Amino acid sequence: MAREVLNVIAQRASEKTGIKLYGRSVERVLAGLLTTSDFWKVVDLADQPVPATSQIVKELVAESLAKIENDEILLTEKGLQLVKDLKIPPAVDYSCKACEGRGIPFYANLDWYHTFLQVTKDRPKAIQEYDQGSVTPETTVSRVLFLDSREDLRDRDILVMGAEDDLTGLAVALTRLPRRVLILDIDERSIDFDNRIFKELGIDNAEAIRFDLRNPFPEEWLKSFDVFITDPPETLKAFKAFIARGIAALRQEGSVGYFGLTLRDSSITRWHQFQKALINDYGMVITDIIQDFNAYMNWDYHAETKAQEVAPVNKVPTDIWYRSAWVRMEALPGFKGENVQITDEVFRELYLDEEGSTT
Amino acid sequence: MAREVLNVIAQRASEKTGIKLYGRSVERVLAGLLTTSDFWKVVDLADQPVPATSQIVKELVAESLAKIENDEILLTEKGLQLVKDLKIPPAVDYSCKACEGRGIPFYANLDWYHTFLQVTKDRPKAIQEYDQGSVTPETTVSRVLFLDSREDLRDRDILVMGAEDDLTGLAVALTRLPRRVLILDIDERSIDFDNRIFKELGIDNAEAIRFDLRNPFPEEWLKSFDVFITDPPETLKAFKAFIARGIAALRQEGSVGYFGLTLRDSSITRWHQFQKALINDYGMVITDIIQDFNAYMNWDYHAETKAQEVAPVNKVPTDIWYRSAWVRMEALPGFKGENVQITDEVFRELYLDEEGSTT
Repeated sequence: MAREVLNVIAQRASEKTGIKLYGRSVERVLAGLLTTSDFWKVVDLADQPVPATSQIVKELVAESLAKIENDEILLTEKGLQLVKDLKIPPAVDYSCKACEGRGIPFYANLDWYHTFLQVTKDRPKAIQEYDQGSVTPETTVSRVLFLDSREDLRDRDILVMGAEDDLTGLAVALTRLPRRVLILDIDERSIDFDNRIFKELGIDNAEAIRFDLRNPFPEEWLKSFDVFITDPPETLKAFKAFIARGIAALRQEGSVGYFGLTLRDSSITRWHQFQKALINDYGMVITDIIQDFNAYMNWDYHAETKAQEVAPVNKVPTDIWYRSAWVRMEALPGFKGENVQITDEVFRELYLDEEGSTT
Repeated sequence: MAREVLNVIAQRASEKTGIKLYGRSVERVLAGLLTTSDFWKVVDLADQPVPATSQIVKELVAESLAKIENDEILLTEKGLQLVKDLKIPPAVDYSCKACEGRGIPFYANLDWYHTFLQVTKDRPKAIQEYDQGSVTPETTVSRVLFLDSREDLRDRDILVMGAEDDLTGLAVALTRLPRRVLILDIDERSIDFDNRIFKELGIDNAEAIRFDLRNPFPEEWLKSFDVFITDPPETLKAFKAFIARGIAALRQEGSVGYFGLTLRDSSITRWHQFQKALINDYGMVITDIIQDFNAYMNWDYHAETKAQEVAPVNKVPTDIWYRSAWVRMEALPGFKGENVQITDEVFRELYLDEEGSTT
């Protein structure tokens, strides 16, 4: 039976990558290949970890269902027949052209957008040392609008934990609407950039501090914020440690956490573990999950990533292919965070991770 | 301290309604009242159960922070001073005008939209006996587009469990893209309506059957569908029973469930219980939560609902105020549903529910 082929390929790719895959995972790659021959676009459409999509492509090639020519991936006649037999449809995209599928258009406040663009025109470049890869300015401004639409911006104490290469903390502070903005990042360049702008513009309720988020927070940051925003690492232990630290900084029930989460560096199985932690261990409830909200610009160091190394092609991405979901959660009565040292061991896990590949 | 007033009001409203409320719950109502004097619009903006928002308004009136004049709710000078002291901002709405905030515009496939409108122009009216209240045609068509964009439509076996007054099953079948559509509903009128259209249009892979969803499914429906869609009742036991039945009908890992969930008939605390059930008990992972995706038309029997009874005003809604989130979840390896009789006792809970009010 034709469908059995999918399961066989999924199982082989599973064994080689250590990532749980099943028939539908292969289907998603085939659906992507009906739309594009560009590996990175297939990754985007398939919504599963890069090493998984890559290995599935390799297995399709081994089975002569696909072939690689000039760095493009093409279905063979045998592959096209399989797709036809299984009636696998091409991936379709109906996302709204106005708001780029976010539900909130970045131009809902043009002042914020223009100010952000103007102020950040000489922003620091993303570098691999700090696992950076910045979101588009449209993404950053949409995040601010999202916060505002959920009453999480005005007169709030807001903590931004890392990923300030996205300049989310800066964009939040530029609105001058929060009560206080505290930005923590390990990259001195982002910190200096933010503080220089705050000084130039006379924004005195925002501050950026160089801080290694592996270290526990000082007492004065605990239970002190209405909102935290972060872009956590995506191995289970590191994710939990980061998020739990953010939760420890929340003031009270009804306080809120935001974070990005990918299906490029994490599988859906890992999402399940993340959700378990949030809901069972920390007493949070998830209120929003918006897929593909965060669009990442191609980073300069892409050629040196594991993603490029495991890819079945040498071609580098030519367009946006890395996206993440935007997740909002609320603290319920009895919620609890953690504020412990994140050990090197937990951090090493990040580099032994079978699903992650872009850091 | 001015902020203490919010907590006091929240606690009083909590005691009277039996719904967990805290300072932020009152803030949301005040933010709504800065934008509108229409009770139903405040309910829409405040995103909490009708009895909660209603009781908070009543407490605000008791404290002379608000007053009711000609069925409109107005902040008093004392109320405006409190809002100013606490710097509570008015609720803002940035939702995309093109896609109505869904991220997918209903006109992405105009054929589907026009066909749906034409075919359903003499659709049956929503009636209270079956807890009905239909979503707008734009909502129904957007659901179909959403399924398609997630590869949950074409060549799939799709089960629609109840709420066919929304005609979601019909809209899905009208695309002629699924392999099979099975629609179950207790309302003979929807069933007959669907089957008549299937017959007229020669759609022979779709079928509507009158079925009381309290009864277990026959063996042939179990483990037989790729996708189920439902609009579950929102008390914990009934929600679990409905959703678990849908999950029991799913074929394999990677199969998908969709459902609507409100913050009008459920509190965020109850959402937490729902999420626990999905993630811990049934082995599902949540992939999407899009707030306000489902917009409901005002139903004719509104005046007879508990919502109107508990409302602090006699005025009935004049515009869309009842919305729900659209949730998508995937079955992981080891997922499991349940297929047991739903007892009258579980169902009675629905009518003793402190949070629900629109049925």
